[in-house]
Amino acid sequence: MGEYEHILLKREDATVTITMNRASRRNSLSADHLGELLAAFRETGESDATGVILAGAGPVFSAGHDFGDVAARDLSGTRELLRLCTELMRTVQSVPQVVIARVHGLATAAGCQLVASCDLAVAAESAGFALPGGKGGWFCHTPAVPVARAIGRKRLMELALTGDVIDAATALDWGLVNRVVPDDRLDEAVADLLGRATRGSRASKALGKQTLYAQLDRPEEDGYAIAIEVMAAASQTPEAKEGMAAFLEKRRPEWPG
Amino acid sequence: MGEYEHILLKREDATVTITMNRASRRNSLSADHLGELLAAFRETGESDATGVILAGAGPVFSAGHDFGDVAARDLSGTRELLRLCTELMRTVQSVPQVVIARVHGLATAAGCQLVASCDLAVAAESAGFALPGGKGGWFCHTPAVPVARAIGRKRLMELALTGDVIDAATALDWGLVNRVVPDDRLDEAVADLLGRATRGSRASKALGKQTLYAQLDRPEEDGYAIAIEVMAAASQTPEAKEGMAAFLEKRRPEWPG
Amino acid sequence: MGEYEHILLKREDATVTITMNRASRRNSLSADHLGELLAAFRETGESDATGVILAGAGPVFSAGHDFGDVAARDLSGTRELLRLCTELMRTVQSVPQVVIARVHGLATAAGCQLVASCDLAVAAESAGFALPGGKGGWFCHTPAVPVARAIGRKRLMELALTGDVIDAATALDWGLVNRVVPDDRLDEAVADLLGRATRGSRASKALGKQTLYAQLDRPEEDGYAIAIEVMAAASQTPEAKEGMAAFLEKRRPEWPG
Repeated sequence: MGEYEHILLKREDATVTITMNRASRRNSLSADHLGELLAAFRETGESDATGVILAGAGPVFSAGHDFGDVAARDLSGTRELLRLCTELMRTVQSVPQVVIARVHGLATAAGCQLVASCDLAVAAESAGFALPGGKGGWFCHTPAVPVARAIGRKRLMELALTGDVIDAATALDWGLVNRVVPDDRLDEAVADLLGRATRGSRASKALGKQTLYAQLDRPEEDGYAIAIEVMAAASQTPEAKEGMAAFLEKRRPEWPG
Repeated sequence: MGEYEHILLKREDATVTITMNRASRRNSLSADHLGELLAAFRETGESDATGVILAGAGPVFSAGHDFGDVAARDLSGTRELLRLCTELMRTVQSVPQVVIARVHGLATAAGCQLVASCDLAVAAESAGFALPGGKGGWFCHTPAVPVARAIGRKRLMELALTGDVIDAATALDWGLVNRVVPDDRLDEAVADLLGRATRGSRASKALGKQTLYAQLDRPEEDGYAIAIEVMAAASQTPEAKEGMAAFLEKRRPEWPG
Repeated sequence: MGEYEHILLKREDATVTITMNRASRRNSLSADHLGELLAAFRETGESDATGVILAGAGPVFSAGHDFGDVAARDLSGTRELLRLCTELMRTVQSVPQVVIARVHGLATAAGCQLVASCDLAVAAESAGFALPGGKGGWFCHTPAVPVARAIGRKRLMELALTGDVIDAATALDWGLVNRVVPDDRLDEAVADLLGRATRGSRASKALGKQTLYAQLDRPEEDGYAIAIEVMAAASQTPEAKEGMAAFLEKRRPEWPG
């Protein structure tokens, strides 16, 4: 695996754990940090891993953009930074692996955006979520894009306009995370949900999640136009053939890959 | 009413009950079964009925596609099957009647898609819902289209990627169904909700539900562009005139049809 | 401030309260009333106020359109009325202020639409919400546009097709309002949430809310295309510069305006 300065990359069996490791900077997302995360997701995407855990070292998950890295940029430089950040978010969605956020402490601004952009998210009871640009400075315009699509309109408005922190239970109620567990059971819960989300054929799951993102947020008939073609094609893959054969023969499937 | 082999069609007063009746095959949706359901909805759509109950005979609501009918199909044959299935889902939404799913037992894959596609759904406490393609074979690409539009993104990802069954209480919390009731009160609850959803003018309700589907999933201004024109036209119908007159004259309305 | 017959306009510090004041007509929205509300929001939008409270005088928030004003209109006249009504809803979203609905009593039809269209909403425990066109006369086609975007599909279908009233707790659960409080604490809760939603730079908040509405309801990549450009441009404003400088210098920000 590549050499990284700001992140830790660990592979265990079929799971890659990408840990944001700038604890002294609250895992804030400088251009260098974003670049390494993007490289790590791309590297992992090319691997045969089936799942990715995105975690943060130290007291918080991620505090979002590193203002020390933003403050001096002109418009063009900031646009470049935001495009890099967006490229990371979209790569999380386009890699063939199931990506799960392991959230402890605070996940704010682009850190909250990361949670919304991961396929799944498990949070510790003590975790908190915020779009702090809502307190009145640089508004969290891009973080609000995936957060809105997870929690709905009125709740987005509250989060984005107040900048206040919501707790993990509220995040669960609003659909921003899939599970909330006692802090000391976070790793166990992440492993459990990821295990269930990655069982079966890796190729089938990969096509599955990529197609979900392609069909969301569109009029239903456009969603169907995409999903019908993919599902018809998918029916001809070894995974689908094996899944159906095993079902019909009442045996456990043997996944080809 | 037409002759059917795989379904039961019953009319009582203004309500048509369409019952999937392949209990020995867990009401799985072979091409023949889908074709009969589509024909039944079309036939009902042309009738003067005001409500449709979609139910399943036997231990489950519906197990989705019949792999015995899919396994041997090539890409083109599978696409044809999925188009037929999608045509059924869209016909459920386009008929002038209010369609309510009466869900007991399991509603999985295209069976879960049917629940999401009905206008309303009432579930027995013991019901369960799943997109089992997430267990790793043939991914539930098309079922995820309406399910996503009912339950939101993170919950869709969990359902679609794990393949696990969620219980009725979770389905209610996520917005997949409108009511959950003790198993022995399912018919009563279905009749109650359908009764309230079908009172008033049939023509007004029909235009109402059809326009709702037309305006959903679009930018708000596109939704308004559709809804303004329909609502202006609807104001000139006998139903709207009578509704307003009755209100202004403080009397009960007499619906023209 | 302008002269109004049907509404009350009050400014206190940076907050404008617009009160629908046709209690004898249950604050129904005649063309004149709509016109005054639109004028008041436009006037307020041009002011330096930072927040708007939308309230209703008398026993209900608003009963929606005034049938006395609709019944005699032809198609073209009704379309004109609905366009005026929609213009009001969209102006609520486009003014630079944070707009919060203070909901007591019933909010029905276009009254419920107003609640859905405000950025935030706080309801008294005794409040109720309905789309009564669902009872069978003139269907609530346009009110359903923003209500659908707040509460999701299945719940919209129930509200729109039954015409039944949901209580405040249900509205909170479904995401139609942000807070439910005992009736005698309504003003306090409105002031608290609005205070938190308007702190910080007015210019930053204005651009924030306007961009949120622009990016919602679109495929995620379209949302990002909008949000990246706005956020890059916003990074160059005095508000963003001050917010970042204050953070980096560990001091309280001094907002330029």
